[in-house]
Amino acid sequence: MSATTDSSHVNGVDVATLFATLDAVKDQNEIAKFRFRAQNRWVAGTHSVSTFSGFYGAMQEMEHASTTEVVSDHPAVLVGQDHGPTPVEYLLHAVAACLTAGLANIASARGVELRSVTSTVEGDIDLLGVLGLSDGSVRNGYQGIKVTLRIDSDADDETVRGLVEQSRKRSAVYDALVNPTPVEIAVVRG
Amino acid sequence: MSATTDSSHVNGVDVATLFATLDAVKDQNEIAKFRFRAQNRWVAGTHSVSTFSGFYGAMQEMEHASTTEVVSDHPAVLVGQDHGPTPVEYLLHAVAACLTAGLANIASARGVELRSVTSTVEGDIDLLGVLGLSDGSVRNGYQGIKVTLRIDSDADDETVRGLVEQSRKRSAVYDALVNPTPVEIAVVRG
Repeated sequence: MSATTDSSHVNGVDVATLFATLDAVKDQNEIAKFRFRAQNRWVAGTHSVSTFSGFYGAMQEMEHASTTEVVSDHPAVLVGQDHGPTPVEYLLHAVAACLTAGLANIASARGVELRSVTSTVEGDIDLLGVLGLSDGSVRNGYQGIKVTLRIDSDADDETVRGLVEQSRKRSAVYDALVNPTPVEIAVVRG
Repeated sequence: MSATTDSSHVNGVDVATLFATLDAVKDQNEIAKFRFRAQNRWVAGTHSVSTFSGFYGAMQEMEHASTTEVVSDHPAVLVGQDHGPTPVEYLLHAVAACLTAGLANIASARGVELRSVTSTVEGDIDLLGVLGLSDGSVRNGYQGIKVTLRIDSDADDETVRGLVEQSRKRSAVYDALVNPTPVEIAVVRG
């Protein structure tokens, strides 16, 4: 029996645990308050490395199963050494990963089996903003982001569109991009 | 002679090339139009992998020096297998990396040497939104993000604060977070 046909594990999601988690949060809303963290270290030029290890959630300090490092830089054409993707490219990954994780959870909760989900995310940016060469009419960030999800499933188009729409409605990263998020910057010396 | 004291390379930034690039863009604004991309592939449950390789910029299709893969998942407490950071954690990396890259470029352009820059980024999120357990009053995304930059440099506080402020003003990721960005989602089958 494959994982996708086990009634308690649809699409690799443990549906029983998913519903039990929802019930636990309903009983005690405080469980749902999370604080995520990244630690970043400048290497040289536009090259930096971030580390993810701990976070706060479910009323306690927690650790990821392993620490993850990710690298960022600018490509040569943007006067970097191209040690990794640019910071803005990570936003494209974040929205794809968030919509895809939500899609799998929602499909599983609805008993819809997915064979594959792939996506391409494109972000258009005019660097006149970042470079300070605009008169103020060109923003620094993306002018728009387009996500194209390719979904292989026996479910009909209406069902699949319903999964995507619910994923969009519940996506943390989609919300963080389409709506304003306050960002505070503090500076310490030494 | 260390890289930071070479007059044309301050903080590992090739300042001459930086200014030449700005001049080139001033002459031909079209060079500044970029389209970045990420390709994401669902693995199982909330686990997915993104790949960054090509992008469009400077009026041509370009490739990163190497392809980068990044992994995303949910931790066990959020019913995942914890194969990597959550999608929302990548937003914290993105803003740290963007502010830090900008800081290094701006410091270099102003002739300010940096010894080290590290940062901690924290994002507060109430998962009642994502879990669909809120009456609509709790948003899906971060309620707020706090970036704490630690900067070691001989420059005085006012100079350092000026670098951070200019980096914030020109940051693509900061803008993408604090202001709305349109995100379009298309679905294809198969």
